[in-house]
Amino acid sequence: MRIGILGYGNLGKAISIAINNNPEMELVAVFTRRNPQVIKPLTKVNILPVSEIEQYINKIDILILCGGSANDLVKDTIKYAKYFNVIDSYDNHAKIVEHFNEVNEVCQKNKKIAIVSCGWDPGLFSLNRLFSQAILPNGITNTFWGPGVSQGHTNAIRKLDGVDDAIQYTIPNDDILKQIRNGNDLTLADNQKHTRVCYVALKDGINHQKITNEIKNMPDYFKEYNTQVNYITTEELHTKHNKMPHGGSAIHLGYTGLHNENKQLIEYSLKLDSNPEFTANIILAYTKALYKLSKMGTTGAKTIFDIPPSLLINKTNEELLKEFL
Amino acid sequence: MRIGILGYGNLGKAISIAINNNPEMELVAVFTRRNPQVIKPLTKVNILPVSEIEQYINKIDILILCGGSANDLVKDTIKYAKYFNVIDSYDNHAKIVEHFNEVNEVCQKNKKIAIVSCGWDPGLFSLNRLFSQAILPNGITNTFWGPGVSQGHTNAIRKLDGVDDAIQYTIPNDDILKQIRNGNDLTLADNQKHTRVCYVALKDGINHQKITNEIKNMPDYFKEYNTQVNYITTEELHTKHNKMPHGGSAIHLGYTGLHNENKQLIEYSLKLDSNPEFTANIILAYTKALYKLSKMGTTGAKTIFDIPPSLLINKTNEELLKEFL
Repeated sequence: MRIGILGYGNLGKAISIAINNNPEMELVAVFTRRNPQVIKPLTKVNILPVSEIEQYINKIDILILCGGSANDLVKDTIKYAKYFNVIDSYDNHAKIVEHFNEVNEVCQKNKKIAIVSCGWDPGLFSLNRLFSQAILPNGITNTFWGPGVSQGHTNAIRKLDGVDDAIQYTIPNDDILKQIRNGNDLTLADNQKHTRVCYVALKDGINHQKITNEIKNMPDYFKEYNTQVNYITTEELHTKHNKMPHGGSAIHLGYTGLHNENKQLIEYSLKLDSNPEFTANIILAYTKALYKLSKMGTTGAKTIFDIPPSLLINKTNEELLKEFL
Repeated sequence: MRIGILGYGNLGKAISIAINNNPEMELVAVFTRRNPQVIKPLTKVNILPVSEIEQYINKIDILILCGGSANDLVKDTIKYAKYFNVIDSYDNHAKIVEHFNEVNEVCQKNKKIAIVSCGWDPGLFSLNRLFSQAILPNGITNTFWGPGVSQGHTNAIRKLDGVDDAIQYTIPNDDILKQIRNGNDLTLADNQKHTRVCYVALKDGINHQKITNEIKNMPDYFKEYNTQVNYITTEELHTKHNKMPHGGSAIHLGYTGLHNENKQLIEYSLKLDSNPEFTANIILAYTKALYKLSKMGTTGAKTIFDIPPSLLINKTNEELLKEFL
């Protein structure tokens, strides 16, 4: 499998590391919008300006798109699905149908195949919500995120005037989590289930209280949540908060029986030292499926809901039955 | 969807209840090897002797096979796949490949489709072992079962001379479970991870010690395990131990990073008030997929590894993206 990567941020780097550990794949090139000369790669890799990408048509089997959803993927996936089979981790829930339909149209026209919104949420958590609801239709799934770093919320703080750097941890409410795990039938909004804890380093001479107010009143991101703001130095931020852990749980409580008298609880949980590396590994498993589907002549946009699990791993049916069933 | 059930034990009854709660399905008939007159059905249902089953060719879309693996399914699935699309929960791990191949051959010859070994283990746990290994190939899955009733171990005690009735609970070792959940890298055999707790009611005049010895020395079932045997009256057994709870966890610890420095933990857990009802609900979700695949003209034997998750639920692609992704 000849792989290309577009974008060399956290996710792009993690994908390059994962390919390095994967003998079935060859990383042909990383394409970047920055000047390739200034990038110090983590692995031995060919870093090229994105302007050269079209020279690689037919030289790579799958292009993995590693930009952000809001500014990059919304355009990139459609643009590059003309030339390549592509996979992205588009995560803007409100526009996912629109994105899927646009990508599907381009793929169908150009006889390419794409997987969109591949990661853990959207991704593995979505899959578990679907499985749980399909199996226990009389029930409800509660999703918890964290403890972990939210990139979107971190960026929202970083953009404020006067902030030098920042990080935001999403913390699930332990008491609520325990109640749900014990089969209590609660339906809660995200802001009841989570606390947002921010560590902020300010530029010289900036007033704490002003920034605290700006953060706590930011709609959608913080206003609706129990938000804690802590101030530390830039140095402390960079030494003590330089990891990207994450995780969470999707917990489904369903009822069965003649009189719905039996509770059935399904929990899917993740505890991740590195969010981008875990996401990268999910994307590579689905890249294998994408490759096999492309060889079968399948075209169009797909999601993880469409992919038979057996395609995620290079084993014969007999091996699958013996090793996993 | 017109459904038939063969076998009206714990699973068959649970399936009939689940169909009763499912407006998309019609239970045409339950077929039994017993005298239908002596059976008291839990729901309004047509109970017929199995000798009449061939009259229902073309009158039911899917036949759900609800016998035991060792004596029933090993023959039934092959026998009835000649006439019907079938689904079973065959769980004899050692012979699963053989069973799959035999069913596949009959299906191919007769243009039928089958799903074999559908439940939670084999089943949902198998699926999670496959997903985890596909995503984190540098890692290992530990499976824990219980706390819950093991039907196989219960039957093994019941068959002993002098035993009136019995039940066996499989209990995961809490300390080991905690260590694995905390990311300790342990590879343990099943007998190190579980304790077997038995409640036994003896017939009059039977010696406790003799039965305890027979249980504790039963190879494969108890000899290799920490086994506790408790004696209670038949009445107590029937009043305090008349439920079939179960559950368990499949926990995968994997490593990512340039130097495998990051731990990534995936846990899939079940806490079930009723094991047969949960299994029944899994089977019905896969029955929907089987029905759709049969309408597409697909033939042959399948496992849960082959089924795209989107087929488990009757929703459009747009609904799936909006509700679950």
